[in-house]
Amino acid sequence: MEFQLLAADSGSKARAGIITTDHGQIETPIFMPVGTVGSVKAVNQQQLKEEIKAQIILGNTYHLYLRPGTEILEEAGGLHKFNGWDRPILTDSGGYQVFSLSNNRKLTEEGAMFQSHIDGSRHLFTPERVMDIQRSIGADIIMAFDECPPYPSEYLYAKNSMELTHRWLARCIQRLGETEPKYGYRQTLFPIVQGSTYKDLRKASAEFVAAAECEGNAIGGLSVGEPEEMMYEMCALCCEYLPESKPRYLMGVGTPWNILENISLGVDMFDCVMPTRNGRNGMLFTSKGVVNIKNKKWANDFTPIDDGIDCYTSNFYTKAYLRHLFVASEILALEIASIHNLAFYLHLVKQAREHIIAGDYNQWKNEMIPILKQRC
Amino acid sequence: MEFQLLAADSGSKARAGIITTDHGQIETPIFMPVGTVGSVKAVNQQQLKEEIKAQIILGNTYHLYLRPGTEILEEAGGLHKFNGWDRPILTDSGGYQVFSLSNNRKLTEEGAMFQSHIDGSRHLFTPERVMDIQRSIGADIIMAFDECPPYPSEYLYAKNSMELTHRWLARCIQRLGETEPKYGYRQTLFPIVQGSTYKDLRKASAEFVAAAECEGNAIGGLSVGEPEEMMYEMCALCCEYLPESKPRYLMGVGTPWNILENISLGVDMFDCVMPTRNGRNGMLFTSKGVVNIKNKKWANDFTPIDDGIDCYTSNFYTKAYLRHLFVASEILALEIASIHNLAFYLHLVKQAREHIIAGDYNQWKNEMIPILKQRC
Repeated sequence: MEFQLLAADSGSKARAGIITTDHGQIETPIFMPVGTVGSVKAVNQQQLKEEIKAQIILGNTYHLYLRPGTEILEEAGGLHKFNGWDRPILTDSGGYQVFSLSNNRKLTEEGAMFQSHIDGSRHLFTPERVMDIQRSIGADIIMAFDECPPYPSEYLYAKNSMELTHRWLARCIQRLGETEPKYGYRQTLFPIVQGSTYKDLRKASAEFVAAAECEGNAIGGLSVGEPEEMMYEMCALCCEYLPESKPRYLMGVGTPWNILENISLGVDMFDCVMPTRNGRNGMLFTSKGVVNIKNKKWANDFTPIDDGIDCYTSNFYTKAYLRHLFVASEILALEIASIHNLAFYLHLVKQAREHIIAGDYNQWKNEMIPILKQRC
Repeated sequence: MEFQLLAADSGSKARAGIITTDHGQIETPIFMPVGTVGSVKAVNQQQLKEEIKAQIILGNTYHLYLRPGTEILEEAGGLHKFNGWDRPILTDSGGYQVFSLSNNRKLTEEGAMFQSHIDGSRHLFTPERVMDIQRSIGADIIMAFDECPPYPSEYLYAKNSMELTHRWLARCIQRLGETEPKYGYRQTLFPIVQGSTYKDLRKASAEFVAAAECEGNAIGGLSVGEPEEMMYEMCALCCEYLPESKPRYLMGVGTPWNILENISLGVDMFDCVMPTRNGRNGMLFTSKGVVNIKNKKWANDFTPIDDGIDCYTSNFYTKAYLRHLFVASEILALEIASIHNLAFYLHLVKQAREHIIAGDYNQWKNEMIPILKQRC
């Protein structure tokens, strides 16, 4: 993987760059749609490319390990072949899901023992095992195995957890060095900064992660319930200690305004289930603000869902029709809302990139955020 | 509406034709995907055109009357404008749904009183009201209001029901003659033959319907539980008395082999929820037979869903991936299965048409049916 910095904003720490992987290039800043079990919910691969213009999607190690399992994925020739997505893929390590989804989880130095949320079967994830699984999945960017402490966490809990994540990182790096990619293209590891909401821990973790000299770095454990201002403060601190020459990935963030703020702090990559999950509940992010499409006021609004972005679905379908589909519980409602929200997120980061290159990012961001936040 | 007969099979009563409406032409024999509430479930309008190659879709008067309601539809400028489908639409009259879906229905000479299955509100459908509603919806082909007797029905019940349907037909025709289309394009009424499984009633009903001299005719009340052979017998009888120069529409039928058999009896138009409903349950109709895609045997079958038809989705996605999506309860599974099944139905009637024109329909049909029926 290579990362080339193209431009930096004068009024903020925002930057524009290009990541090059063996499955193609990614223009940063970028938003990555979440395809948990190998499918971005309610969206097909053609729509991801042509309408949403996704450049990279996420998969999840925990989910893909349980279903379809590494045996099937290896037989298919990796996740790209299995799901027909030939652009870059990033896999989350599964650490977060073990703690948020599975049952009877037990954390030891060795790793995390857990029961599947699907059938109750018992499994052990260790840093080594998680590297091996990610070799079998075959994503271009793979994540270190970490523990993501909840918010709020006691200082001592956060410190111990961070140190465990650091020791696990060393084991991830070692295992990865001892193994080869399975499908003939390169895979690169991103370590994860933890440290909860404690400045000294975040600094220590960012320094530790930076010292690992991986090709990109991630910031985890944010957007887990803490106030937005605290997220920005922690993110800014992490960015300060993570090398400028490498992409920075803020995991699981967030709203459109969260993304614009964090771009201005120096973040290059984002993922979040919000556009798809909220979309399925009828909450649309648009170029004019937030729309609750189930609201009766849209029943006879025959204007496009959003004519401010370049997306066939957003331009073609009307608010009245989409509202009707939600009211009638039609599956097409979920598809249209998911496509629109993801297309809007990709539109937003593309616009951000253009303003970084043009040199007026910070001003644009400050004008955009109130518009993005307003309720239509 | 015009209907032009292009070819007739020598070995059967199958025919190929072209229906011309103000929203374009329909090549018969044709299958019409069902878009009950203005959306073909789990399929978008672009996919209907480009992948499925649908030439006409169905809407349902009962559902569209309840949601979004005629007021919204009129404000939109009719269903075509509301749902963005600019090719022909046919609306079912709602008679069948009043009896299968609604509560506390009460049948009188005047019409059918019923309670909405959604909110329990009380409504009265009369032949006049149903014509008015279909004027508001604005389909190209609209159906007469009928009673569809269950199978089995007592002779006397079936006879009385048929006679009521005939009296209602006269009222439909009168009302339609007294009103104008609302959106500047023509609408044409198809009357419906009833008579349950009684030959003398079917003959009487087909003769009554033929005498109404509408531009097309429908056969209702079949595929409601009677044996297949009885359906074919009744259909053949109806076709004998319905004019050759007008399209014949067999309502709610059926499996791929049902369609091929009924084409050979002289039917030109079909609709059925089977491809979408069964698709959502993982049952695929393919060029090699019936596939239960949830079956474990497909877990590592990386061949396309169906490479025997011209449909991107059927050719692009593998059986293994689709099975995985069903096992993981992903929404994309419903979309892929629905698109494939509908594309297969449209492929099948297109092939049928080509064989009718080539003059070898009956032979081809007899070779195809065992293949279509086999379990893969």
